[in-house]
Parts: sequence; structure tokens; C-alpha cells
Amino acid sequence: MSDTAKIYPGVQLGEGADVAPFVLLGVPPRGHKEGDLSTVIGVGATIRSHTVIYAGNRIGRGFQTGHGTMIRESNDIGDDVSIGSGTVIEHHVTIGRGVRVHSGAFIPEYSTLEEGCWIGPCVVLTNAKYPCSPEVKNNLKGPTIRRGAKIGANSTLLPGVEVGAGALVGAGSVVVRDVAPHTVVAGSPARFIKNISDLPY
Amino acid sequence: MSDTAKIYPGVQLGEGADVAPFVLLGVPPRGHKEGDLSTVIGVGATIRSHTVIYAGNRIGRGFQTGHGTMIRESNDIGDDVSIGSGTVIEHHVTIGRGVRVHSGAFIPEYSTLEEGCWIGPCVVLTNAKYPCSPEVKNNLKGPTIRRGAKIGANSTLLPGVEVGAGALVGAGSVVVRDVAPHTVVAGSPARFIKNISDLPY
Amino acid sequence: MSDTAKIYPGVQLGEGADVAPFVLLGVPPRGHKEGDLSTVIGVGATIRSHTVIYAGNRIGRGFQTGHGTMIRESNDIGDDVSIGSGTVIEHHVTIGRGVRVHSGAFIPEYSTLEEGCWIGPCVVLTNAKYPCSPEVKNNLKGPTIRRGAKIGANSTLLPGVEVGAGALVGAGSVVVRDVAPHTVVAGSPARFIKNISDLPY
Repeated sequence: MSDTAKIYPGVQLGEGADVAPFVLLGVPPRGHKEGDLSTVIGVGATIRSHTVIYAGNRIGRGFQTGHGTMIRESNDIGDDVSIGSGTVIEHHVTIGRGVRVHSGAFIPEYSTLEEGCWIGPCVVLTNAKYPCSPEVKNNLKGPTIRRGAKIGANSTLLPGVEVGAGALVGAGSVVVRDVAPHTVVAGSPARFIKNISDLPY
Repeated sequence: MSDTAKIYPGVQLGEGADVAPFVLLGVPPRGHKEGDLSTVIGVGATIRSHTVIYAGNRIGRGFQTGHGTMIRESNDIGDDVSIGSGTVIEHHVTIGRGVRVHSGAFIPEYSTLEEGCWIGPCVVLTNAKYPCSPEVKNNLKGPTIRRGAKIGANSTLLPGVEVGAGALVGAGSVVVRDVAPHTVVAGSPARFIKNISDLPY
Repeated sequence: MSDTAKIYPGVQLGEGADVAPFVLLGVPPRGHKEGDLSTVIGVGATIRSHTVIYAGNRIGRGFQTGHGTMIRESNDIGDDVSIGSGTVIEHHVTIGRGVRVHSGAFIPEYSTLEEGCWIGPCVVLTNAKYPCSPEVKNNLKGPTIRRGAKIGANSTLLPGVEVGAGALVGAGSVVVRDVAPHTVVAGSPARFIKNISDLPY
């Protein structure tokens, strides 16, 4: 562990962790004091430099972050997950086993990333249909990315959309409605292009 | 104040400030020495970790940054403003009272964000019609976001566009012309969808 | 050099370098130990705060980074290059003399940025046609940006596309095929708009 990393009280860091310089682990969220909330990070974590992880997360084994990754509180993150450099994960996000979120992505509150899905660089998920509207805080609903789906780079997903298992969203798409499992969509707005079974691999 | 934060000479930080680790406040811009320019940050600021604020800013009370926020020099920022994690604010930007800029946004020189407007995650404003053209430095003009307008996530705004008061730009839009007040636009290029008065809230 | 910057063994930093706080230079990539790989940064570098540069890079004179810039290993970077705040450069990228990559951009493995080109803020290049497909690691091919081309803010470029010399890609575009030299394209998907010779400057 680097001597310029800071680990707050209440963090349980599994064996074999590699914590790089300028990292903060277990930062208390607003309204909490240091050590109020427990934070569990499984064995074999690689936490790269300048990463910030709030208190109150449950994170599995083999966790990896890039540099400058920021993860808020109250997330449930499975084994063998990787979150890229500069990516922001807000709170109350569920991330399944083997998910990879690439660099520069934004995952808002109440999103679900199921097992084995892939979120490309600079992908932006949203959770508020009418930002700043009177009841917005009671109606937040992030996207659900089903098992093994892949979201191409710099795509934008509207609140509450569901991307079906094994689907592929082309880079730069704007996804405004649900995507059927095992299909390819692309464009702004994203439209059906072909079935995954028609891809040449 | 964290003992790993660095505050350069010339910074006036109001009472009750919370300055997190690995923060730099009052960084001299190119051509200036430490302490050349004064920097004023009002009472009750929360400056989260890894944030960089240059010298020569005027910032009101209740200011908040996320983690890794970067704010260049010579900006005029009102009270109760929040700038999110990883967002870059260039210089000569005017930001009104109560503005919230979410995470991962980019606000270039000579932009104006009026009172109470909301800039979603990863929104990109631009200010150069012809990047790298001979007279580009003399013709920079950022967008103007009027009072209470909301810009959806990952939208791109072309140089000099004006988004009218209370308007809503849908997520993932590319805004290439002015948006009328109290209207909703979306798409690439962004087109009129409906009036705000027709939204169900 | 700031006393909170960390320079790993094997870094050759040219004269006149300005290395800011919380910087890491010469970070060993996975599978390498500290000092295994040499890293050369030419004279007169300005490395701004929170920047991370891996070992095994060749970088010319007059190099500049923004804040929180992240540069992986095995890149070949010419003289007078500037890489902006929060931008991620992956490995095996070739960057010619005088290139400017603005803030928040993402440049993947096996991309080529030729001399004098300009990459706008939050531009995302890609290199995998079918992410996570069985042979993906053997088929990575990033875009090639030819001399003096300009890529507008928040554009997305598909794997392997070539943007011709002196071309201009409008902000927010999704570039799905090659762009002819000295033309302007825009939109999603990006289409020919006019010739550069028809621009008013």
C-alpha cells in the first residue's frame, strides 16, 4: 500500500490488495462520520492511483480500478469487476460478476449492470426523465444492462431503458427505448441493425 | 483542511470550508507567479479530493466541487454552485447562482451559465467554430444557457448557441442552433419536440 | 519538481521540466517491475498535477499535459505535443509533432494521430469492431487521423476509420467511414457537408 493513500476507518480490504498513491478508500458520504459505514473489498484488489471509493460499498474479489476512478457509496459490486480510469459510479448501483466498465463512463444511481456486460469508454447512462422536476428524486431509474450486453463507446442511454442479454449497442448511439436481446442497434436514436447471430464471428 | 491539500498564496477561503486531500487551490496560470492573482471562495465551501482551482477566480458562498474537478482562472461563479467530478471549467466563464454542473462536463472559455440552470453529466459545450483557424483566438464564443434551462447528459452544444430560459435539451443531443425558451429539443441535430408546458409534471 | 510527485526508476526527464504535485511518472505496466522499462521525456516538459504517465514511453520536447491526464505505456509521442486534462491515452499510440489533444478525450491502443492534428474535447476514438468477441485482442485497430485534421468535440470515431489530411469533423459527429482529405463532415452518421476550401477563412 502506498504511503500517500488514505484508508478511512471501517474499510475491510482483502489480502493481496495493491493500493496506489493518492487513493482514498472509505470516504464518508454526506451525513456520515468516518467509520460509520463499513466497506468491504475482496481479496486481490488493484486500486490504481487517484481513485476514490466511498464508505458503504460491498465489492467482491479481484476488483480493479483505473486511475482517478470515483465510486460513491451503497453499491453492490460482484467478483472480478473492473472500473476504468476517470469513470464515475454513483450510489445504489448493482454490478454483477465479471463486468468491465471502461474509462470515462458515467453510471448514475439505481442502474443495474448484469454479469459479464461491457460498458465502453465514455458511455453515459442517465436516470432522470425530467431533470430538476418536482418529484425527480422519487422517480430516479437508471438503465438495466442485461447479461453479456455490450454498450459501444460514447453512447447515451435514456432513463430506465433495458438493453437485453447479449445485445450490442453501436458506438455513439443514443438509446431511447429498450433493446431486444441478442440484437445490434445503432444511431441517434438507436435502431435495430441486425441480429447478433448475423455478425461474422 | 486536509494536510495533503495545497493552498497557494493569494487565496481567501471563507469560513467553514472543507478542503479534502490532494486538492490544489490558487494555482497560478501561465505567465503569473504564485500570489499574483487573488482568489476568493465564499463561506461554506466543500472542495472534494483531487480538485484543482486556479488563481484569479471569484466564487460565491456554498460552493461545492466533486472529485477531480478542474477550474481554470478568471471565472465569475455565483452562490450555491456545484461543479461535478471530473468536470473541466475553462477560463472567462460566468456561472450564475444555484447552477449545477454534473460530472464529466466540459465548459469552454467565454460560456455563460445563467442562474439555476442544470448541465447534465458529460455535456460538452464548444466555443470555436473553426478550430485552429487563423483568427480562432479572437472569435471564441461559448454557448449561453439561460435561466433554469436543463441540458441532458452527453449533449454537444455548438459555439455561440443560446438555450432559452427553462428549455430542456434531451440527452445525447447535438445542438446546432438556438433553442427557444420553454421548449424541449432532442436529436442530432436537435429539433423541437414539444413545449415544456406539455410535459406531465 | 513538486515533492509530492513521484518519479519511478528508469525515467529520463529532460532539462527544464516542471512537474506538479500528485504526479506519477514511469509507473510500471502490469507484468513489469519498477525500472524495467525506460521512459524518455524531452526537454521543457510541463506535467500538470495528478497526471499519470506509465513507463516505456518515448516523448519529445516541449511536452505538456493538463491535470489528471493518464498515458499508458509504449507510446511514441513527437515534439510539442499537448494532451489535455482528464484525457486517457492507451498504449501503442503514435502521436506526431505539434498534435493537440484537448480535455476529456479517449485515444485507444493502435491509434495514429499525425503531425499537427487537433482532437477536440471529449472526443472518443475506438479500436474494437466487436468488443469482447473471441479474436478481439488480435484485431484491434484504432483510427488514423492524418496531418492537420481536426476532430470536433464529443465526436465518436469507429475502429480503423481514416480522417484525411486537413479534414474537419463537426462536433458531436459519429464517424463510421473514412473522411476524404480537406472535407468537412458532420452528423450521426457523419456525412459530407462541404470542402474545406469553401469555409470562410
